[in-house]
Amino acid sequence: METLLLNPTDVDENADMAEVIVAVEEAFAAYEAGRVRMPAKSYIDLPEYDGDFRSMPAYMDSGEWDAAGIKWVNSHTNNADAHGLPTVMGTMIYSDPETAFPLAVMDGTTLTRKRTGAAAAVATDRLAVPDAGSLGIVGLGVQSYTQLEAIATVRDIQTVVVTDKREAAVEAFLERFGDAFDVRPGSVSEAASCDVLSTVTPVESPIVDAADLGEHTHVNAMGADAPGKNELAADVLASAKLVIDDYEQCTHSGEINVPWDDGTLTDGDLHAELGEIVAGKRSGRTPEDGLTVFDSTGLAIQDVAAARVVYERADAGGEGTGFTLVDTELR
Amino acid sequence: METLLLNPTDVDENADMAEVIVAVEEAFAAYEAGRVRMPAKSYIDLPEYDGDFRSMPAYMDSGEWDAAGIKWVNSHTNNADAHGLPTVMGTMIYSDPETAFPLAVMDGTTLTRKRTGAAAAVATDRLAVPDAGSLGIVGLGVQSYTQLEAIATVRDIQTVVVTDKREAAVEAFLERFGDAFDVRPGSVSEAASCDVLSTVTPVESPIVDAADLGEHTHVNAMGADAPGKNELAADVLASAKLVIDDYEQCTHSGEINVPWDDGTLTDGDLHAELGEIVAGKRSGRTPEDGLTVFDSTGLAIQDVAAARVVYERADAGGEGTGFTLVDTELR
Repeated sequence: METLLLNPTDVDENADMAEVIVAVEEAFAAYEAGRVRMPAKSYIDLPEYDGDFRSMPAYMDSGEWDAAGIKWVNSHTNNADAHGLPTVMGTMIYSDPETAFPLAVMDGTTLTRKRTGAAAAVATDRLAVPDAGSLGIVGLGVQSYTQLEAIATVRDIQTVVVTDKREAAVEAFLERFGDAFDVRPGSVSEAASCDVLSTVTPVESPIVDAADLGEHTHVNAMGADAPGKNELAADVLASAKLVIDDYEQCTHSGEINVPWDDGTLTDGDLHAELGEIVAGKRSGRTPEDGLTVFDSTGLAIQDVAAARVVYERADAGGEGTGFTLVDTELR
Repeated sequence: METLLLNPTDVDENADMAEVIVAVEEAFAAYEAGRVRMPAKSYIDLPEYDGDFRSMPAYMDSGEWDAAGIKWVNSHTNNADAHGLPTVMGTMIYSDPETAFPLAVMDGTTLTRKRTGAAAAVATDRLAVPDAGSLGIVGLGVQSYTQLEAIATVRDIQTVVVTDKREAAVEAFLERFGDAFDVRPGSVSEAASCDVLSTVTPVESPIVDAADLGEHTHVNAMGADAPGKNELAADVLASAKLVIDDYEQCTHSGEINVPWDDGTLTDGDLHAELGEIVAGKRSGRTPEDGLTVFDSTGLAIQDVAAARVVYERADAGGEGTGFTLVDTELR
């Protein structure tokens, strides 16, 4: 019995975005229904290397299928400059929950990008205006690409306004998406006035004010992933219908963590967890709503759900590389 | 840049036992010195499949080298009968702490056996009589083999008395070790009267009484790994010099967990953690000592230390299989 090894290209090609979005939506529904076992992300801090490791194990049961696995991922801020390596690298072990056999070991970095885009799409589908045609993106790093890929799956996006201080990043984005979309470089305000805005930056002080945003803009706040980080000014969070992916993670290290810590934001300001909306227990956008915000921190169940899509497609298509990781004869 | 894939044979051949014992000893020393970051083992219980998943991440710094990684391992009690698969299967991701690059993905099952044997050897080296020549083994499952391999590295073992209800297990053990050692099948009492005894069973009620043991026997209690499990009668624990690998894990799920829970055993009955003995802060065996017991639950730093030995040897020897798990061009 072999374990399927899936490299970055395998993961990219088999993470069909429409399927990943459905799987991630099912993960949020399962979470709300209590059909998930997901220990808290566990951190190993490595201040001597300006980095950390995170382990993200999870099991989920959609009702029709179940899946389990663990993602081992890091954030080493000096990797690019000091070592010519990505800041973030992930490895995913995808296991059969019935026997625990490791069905696949796959690149977790590409997987993270896909499932993060998919979460933004699930939120956008419930929170953006139905006829949203424009998407603004602030920050054109690797995570920005799947924002467009995923959000264009749930809304008929025509115009994309992008902004990044690094000209090369703007060029690369245009090169990749210029043929399929009307992509325009612009200011933060121009990006923020679109129907949908995704902020995908590592900033520690807000770069988007309420005045920048359109009247009915839906914002996916994707960047904040650690205490002290936030992208949106207090007046945005105060006036928006505020949706989070997970209470513990968001109040600790999501977009809302800074105003949460200083007490400007409290339980009463939160509209819902995304799973509650997916499950129909809380409303998505209603005609009365203006600004909406989705605070995404990323859950281990998103990885497991996306890994299942990748594994099932790759396995059915005969892709990837088989490897004997377990000696099944030894009991 | 490629990740090295190591299958069960690769791990077996590169886990040089003498080196693994040294590395595991260094891991215990680092633990005592506070040069370890090791979040608690995290469990995902799967009662619907009579199983669980455990994630074991760790970082350690020996002073001369450091290492990091995670083991993802399970225990599914019906695997053999229902699926023809091992009860326990592990996968280890071994990472460079400086950059977090995944240096290797390896079979974690063979690794577990090696590092578990190595821990017993470290304890035996400090706690058995210096001229110990006989080893008893109760329970001849897969973990028993590395008990002999490892303990014979630190003591001049001539005679091995083994006991198991399963005749085939006894035969297999004789077949494997009959040429190198004087291996004799015997009763539990006969095994327990040896200079060193390793109990390697999944029993939930004690099978070894104080009367079975020799006057100066050192016992490695390897089997208990969950609340409710124990192998040694209360009179053994009460009269022995009692050494544990980790306070939290042992009181929760080690050999001592049952008497700990009912209050018969308390802090005052514990002599030391193994790391304290390795570091020279507490005594190992002294001439006055009679019975000694080592309660082993298995620490994530043992896996990381053993994985380093395996990776370094395999890499130097050009063994294993290279695989592109990370796209290092994407920042």
